[in-house]
Amino acid sequence: MLENLKIGILGGGQLGGMLIRHAIDLGLSISVMDKDANAPCARYTSSFTCADPKSYEAVLAFGKDLDVITIEMEAVNIDALLELEKQGKKVFPTPDSIRVIQDKYTQKQFLLSHNIPVVPGVAVDSRNDLHKLENKLPGCLKKRRDGYDGYGVMMLKTTADIATAFDAPSVLEELVDIKHEIAVIVARNEQGDVRCYDPVMMVFSEEKFVLESQVAPAQLPQGMQEEAVALAERVADALKLVGILAVEMFITKDNKILVNELAPRPHNSGHHTIEASITSQYEQLLRAILGLPLGDTALRLPSLMLNILETEALSENRAEKFRSLLAISGAHVHWYGKKGIRLGRKVGHITIADSTMESVVAKAATIRKILN
Amino acid sequence: MLENLKIGILGGGQLGGMLIRHAIDLGLSISVMDKDANAPCARYTSSFTCADPKSYEAVLAFGKDLDVITIEMEAVNIDALLELEKQGKKVFPTPDSIRVIQDKYTQKQFLLSHNIPVVPGVAVDSRNDLHKLENKLPGCLKKRRDGYDGYGVMMLKTTADIATAFDAPSVLEELVDIKHEIAVIVARNEQGDVRCYDPVMMVFSEEKFVLESQVAPAQLPQGMQEEAVALAERVADALKLVGILAVEMFITKDNKILVNELAPRPHNSGHHTIEASITSQYEQLLRAILGLPLGDTALRLPSLMLNILETEALSENRAEKFRSLLAISGAHVHWYGKKGIRLGRKVGHITIADSTMESVVAKAATIRKILN
Repeated sequence: MLENLKIGILGGGQLGGMLIRHAIDLGLSISVMDKDANAPCARYTSSFTCADPKSYEAVLAFGKDLDVITIEMEAVNIDALLELEKQGKKVFPTPDSIRVIQDKYTQKQFLLSHNIPVVPGVAVDSRNDLHKLENKLPGCLKKRRDGYDGYGVMMLKTTADIATAFDAPSVLEELVDIKHEIAVIVARNEQGDVRCYDPVMMVFSEEKFVLESQVAPAQLPQGMQEEAVALAERVADALKLVGILAVEMFITKDNKILVNELAPRPHNSGHHTIEASITSQYEQLLRAILGLPLGDTALRLPSLMLNILETEALSENRAEKFRSLLAISGAHVHWYGKKGIRLGRKVGHITIADSTMESVVAKAATIRKILN
Repeated sequence: MLENLKIGILGGGQLGGMLIRHAIDLGLSISVMDKDANAPCARYTSSFTCADPKSYEAVLAFGKDLDVITIEMEAVNIDALLELEKQGKKVFPTPDSIRVIQDKYTQKQFLLSHNIPVVPGVAVDSRNDLHKLENKLPGCLKKRRDGYDGYGVMMLKTTADIATAFDAPSVLEELVDIKHEIAVIVARNEQGDVRCYDPVMMVFSEEKFVLESQVAPAQLPQGMQEEAVALAERVADALKLVGILAVEMFITKDNKILVNELAPRPHNSGHHTIEASITSQYEQLLRAILGLPLGDTALRLPSLMLNILETEALSENRAEKFRSLLAISGAHVHWYGKKGIRLGRKVGHITIADSTMESVVAKAATIRKILN
């Protein structure tokens, strides 16, 4: 049965680590490939390959003895995945759906072609192009590929900012009047069964575009929740998704919902599902790609997830802060065990799951004090 | 910080696998030693040693580069652990406490010497000895060492049974009139902080002495719960425990509580803590041996844990049964991924955690039907 199945993950970061956490529940064998020998996952598998998931040869070699291949990052070699698919391997999400998503411009075009509302944006080939688009400023400039955790995103307020803009293929997006940022995680399997998690409310740090915290359930009118869930399901169907997909959305001040970005893999907007939901997003991904029944996505407890970023305050007094965090009941600390110190990097997260939202919020305040 | 700590587990079965599941939450590096190259843990670490935890040389070699060593089984070489302790390694539970517990007779004598009520029993060196003890029959014969999951335990009803009795150092225990079997898991750290989980009610299969299921919270009068918890704490203090300890107890028909057996490691009477408690027993063990604050042991949801034993019914129709189990909301399937088929062996467990005990019990009935 499952114990003989060989499953591979491209990418070996904390998302892969949490996926292995849940693979243990099903007794699965997981191989991992990451270009960093010290990737968080490397220590949690007997089958780690140190190679670049963007390399055609490396991905092909990695996949040749596997049965099922999935991803924990979008920056992977699609041609190799298509070749593995041809060889009869299950590659989920499908290479085609990863290809559409891994480029933020083709992603947007794809959504538009399926009548899914998005933030308007234009393609930019290089920094020089931006001068022709001065009438579109202020705007948000995003690299088409390989952005993550706020890397690859910047604001262009005036023409003066063009001088320091990315000189790479990008998308220049209109600034929308955002009331809320939310995310919906949706799972879909080969049979076309779909299950959505409830929307979560996301709070970003203004300077760095990094998720600071996120609250589930999102405090939204019922109708808007349903609209967001329906939208996420439409995206999953349009992509013929097999796996899970995080759909990040903006709610504008005039109450429109626009899709901001997609991620066809476990996502930090679903970290809370480990403790707060009946089925975690990680288990759900495994169920989806293995053709097992999708799990119940119901939220069991109100929750708030806080990302832990490396700061000077943290690096100075890490052990003591860590002990203080662990002493808070219902605060579930996830520490990624990354080697070395690099300011600004995500080094962990904490999910507070408790019986009432009031107590969750109070504990979050205590935790923010400890971390800062 | 923790990412540079090297932690080792002696034993690589499902308990070790679940320990790694929770080690991922703290970003820990875990090395594992087991005599079976196919042990469930082997695939979840980059540092697996295939060797016998009972071998002095093997344990010493395994421990030499580690900082902290723990166990997931009692059948380990104590002399090697004492030597590692001398070399400055943290060995938790302490070798002395494992030595007391790994022999069921010295365990009993230890408890008696601390005025902890136990099931009366006498030491037996070999089968021949039993003939001198015919006046003590009927009784329960347990091998002094290396019993687990019902192996190493048998009933001696009449003198005729002596012919097929174990011919090994054993303990012949009086039969007590048992109303309930319960277990309490207690954690204690080096500072002497103690935290207990609430008692769970255990139901054993009558023929095989294997745990069939277990319910938390145990339906017991408040006073009796408190007595059981106090008893577990006394045992932990007497052992100067660092780690976690499962204290299995009998409640007799005249409402006395007797300690039946101890296990100084994660235990199947604590499986439910993964989904039903704020802190799982596995995380609690890691906290205890790493000198971190002990976690909140409160139960969050009523739960029932069912062991899955390999049966002919299961092996015939495994994949379909597995799918049916996964379709039940709130039934958390843990499949150990053991290779090969051996009837009677534990191959997984299911924890049902749900909002009411009624729905938990109803789902358990459905699951038993699927499994049988």
